[in-house]
Amino acid sequence: MARGRRNLIYAQAGGTTAVINATAAAVIETSRAHSDRIGRVLAGRYGILGVLHEELIDTRRESAAAIRALRHTPGGAFGSARFRLGEPEADRAVYERIVEVFDAHDVGYFLYNGGNGSADTCRQLARIPELFGYPVTCVHVPKTIDNDILGTDCCPGFGSAAKYLATSMKEAAADVASMAATSTRVFILEAMGRHAGWMVAAMGLASDGRNHPPHLLLFAEIPFDESAFLRHVRETVGRHGYCVIGVSEGLRTADGRFVSEIPAEVAGRNEQLGGVAPVLARLVHDRLHLKCHWATADYLQRSARHVASATDLAHAEAVGRAAVEFALAGCNGVMPTIVRRSDRPYRWEIGSTGLDRIAAREKRLPRQFITRSGYHITERCRDYMLPLIQGEAPAPFRNGLPEHARLAGHLTPKKLPEWPPSSQPVALGKKT
Amino acid sequence: MARGRRNLIYAQAGGTTAVINATAAAVIETSRAHSDRIGRVLAGRYGILGVLHEELIDTRRESAAAIRALRHTPGGAFGSARFRLGEPEADRAVYERIVEVFDAHDVGYFLYNGGNGSADTCRQLARIPELFGYPVTCVHVPKTIDNDILGTDCCPGFGSAAKYLATSMKEAAADVASMAATSTRVFILEAMGRHAGWMVAAMGLASDGRNHPPHLLLFAEIPFDESAFLRHVRETVGRHGYCVIGVSEGLRTADGRFVSEIPAEVAGRNEQLGGVAPVLARLVHDRLHLKCHWATADYLQRSARHVASATDLAHAEAVGRAAVEFALAGCNGVMPTIVRRSDRPYRWEIGSTGLDRIAAREKRLPRQFITRSGYHITERCRDYMLPLIQGEAPAPFRNGLPEHARLAGHLTPKKLPEWPPSSQPVALGKKT
Repeated sequence: MARGRRNLIYAQAGGTTAVINATAAAVIETSRAHSDRIGRVLAGRYGILGVLHEELIDTRRESAAAIRALRHTPGGAFGSARFRLGEPEADRAVYERIVEVFDAHDVGYFLYNGGNGSADTCRQLARIPELFGYPVTCVHVPKTIDNDILGTDCCPGFGSAAKYLATSMKEAAADVASMAATSTRVFILEAMGRHAGWMVAAMGLASDGRNHPPHLLLFAEIPFDESAFLRHVRETVGRHGYCVIGVSEGLRTADGRFVSEIPAEVAGRNEQLGGVAPVLARLVHDRLHLKCHWATADYLQRSARHVASATDLAHAEAVGRAAVEFALAGCNGVMPTIVRRSDRPYRWEIGSTGLDRIAAREKRLPRQFITRSGYHITERCRDYMLPLIQGEAPAPFRNGLPEHARLAGHLTPKKLPEWPPSSQPVALGKKT
Repeated sequence: MARGRRNLIYAQAGGTTAVINATAAAVIETSRAHSDRIGRVLAGRYGILGVLHEELIDTRRESAAAIRALRHTPGGAFGSARFRLGEPEADRAVYERIVEVFDAHDVGYFLYNGGNGSADTCRQLARIPELFGYPVTCVHVPKTIDNDILGTDCCPGFGSAAKYLATSMKEAAADVASMAATSTRVFILEAMGRHAGWMVAAMGLASDGRNHPPHLLLFAEIPFDESAFLRHVRETVGRHGYCVIGVSEGLRTADGRFVSEIPAEVAGRNEQLGGVAPVLARLVHDRLHLKCHWATADYLQRSARHVASATDLAHAEAVGRAAVEFALAGCNGVMPTIVRRSDRPYRWEIGSTGLDRIAAREKRLPRQFITRSGYHITERCRDYMLPLIQGEAPAPFRNGLPEHARLAGHLTPKKLPEWPPSSQPVALGKKT
């Protein structure tokens, strides 16, 4: 492999997490430590779009302090994109462009930091050496609050979202408990997770025993039964005076309809923009005549760096470092993984998996993580999740607010003509 | 005043804050330090309801550690209530009951910890010595995230809600900025504040200059102009690629309708349970065809003790201590206030005001705190608010989650018959 120094492109993909930039920092710092083998680290501006448009941020021009500060900066510091590539056979022009850009900037390593969709894209890009004869090592770096990538015990980003949701649930439940005598009886907190209930399960960690809130969790995996739900709410309010509920945005009825979309269907709309929490609040109010409050955390749950998990942060950094080492070792088409060695004490190490084995599939919340009733998490789920929210790693605050990295963001000079030609618009990828 | 030792009742009222229990801790600890004058501190279970029902928690039976832990416990640790008393002339039976309970438990001091509604109730209770000949000193202790109590520079509870909202806004804005190339273009964060825009103004602190998000703030005080709003969103997206918006739940149209209620009106409902954020998101989606995400923080913003302001916490403790001192000095019908001595450096001290001067009125967000355009905060507003979010005072975390006080909650034995007689139901107060 003695090819001398070549450059590395790092690109962020899909939705961000509270710690994705910690991975970026680890990639950049580890690459700098290998300056004999890696020349420049270029970051795609808006992820893979930056590669296609040859908009590559030259991270050499960022100070060491700015790179360090990425560790406590939410969002995707270089910009992310939802953009999915087809098979090289179908999307040949796009792949040719990528190879052209790689070649123009002497790129020998490509690190793609994303979820399931980008793992599949990275798997395709890893075929470039074989299909186009261009030497490049492509490594996927896992990241997603959805925790649904196969082959890894957990996904960097999930632990921090879980810690945020469990913390918020615990705090809000204390509030509701104090108001229940004369005011709010029911509180509903909505989590993201269109297809799986990982995040609503995390809210269950706020409960430290039977009869502690949250009292009901509504998972994307368990069909919503309206009358059973209302019965449980009524019984819980009867027993405890109030009822605290966590719900996944992906909650569906037995016939597969999203509960969040029902009012839109009634109103003749075919697309939802509302959450599921207000729909359930309306139901509780109309049918049980109980005062109900609800909250929808949305992006707050994936950007809440101020309450990130130190364990999650360590994972995010470790996969970044490992990805660079894998790239240097020529491991094409792989992804570093988190391997759990034990729950108590929690022990983990970095492993790896081939992208062929995991791409374009989803890890679901195991049924044995949900109680038989379908309304809470099991001890097995707690054993799995609790290690992931351990430890605090607060961002430094300045003038009352968390401080974030300020990057210069200098683009490296372009060497190629504009792309695509105006006659050939790029089809922007579907939401991944 | 040499009356010997008498007991003190402390009661929480209305919506909770992240630091109301810090006031409770200060009240209890200061009272314990005055054991020559104050016997027991009894806490009303569910606030004033606990007085009426003679459900009084004996705080002597709580450990010093549990009382200390109240400092980092959100919610209302003894229970709160929304319950408003009328004039003693109209509600005589209720006042007589209160006097009876005070007398049965030798209560010489009553501390009521709440917002505007409870300040008015406390003002009425302060007439008990005059009207009923029973010697008691009633002191109101300010608390509200709404920051709308007159006579005080700010209200304990507001600073922490403001810090939470500004932090969340800053973090979510970083997320949106990174997604804007291919996905979400517009993000809307909804704050509480049915009548005033104090909390949406706090989100403005996240912007550290022109052109930084949030780009638009929609205040309860500024009538909502749909076409101007849409024009501003389109222009902002054109200029920056994305648009981040903060909105007050109390946003109204020029004819006084809550924007959050418009879909309910359309659907023939007369009560709202939805927020304003999804209504605006629908508008942006339908009219501008931009992908939009939204979040509604609701109770999270008033219970987020994990990101409380140290300054706010200091205020909350100081008014608790001062309230006990005022009570001991026989200052009936007063409230300790926060007096600002300077902005930079921020200097403050405790003052006092008579409840006659402030009760049943609201401090509005000054118009000069809102820019001429009506869409952002002015430097004057920043100068006012920034000191209130300074300093971090995180709760201790244990096993990954913030630790909250666990109170024993022993009730002191009842000495009186049940109240009210079943023939005479208590009219529960309206939402204050």
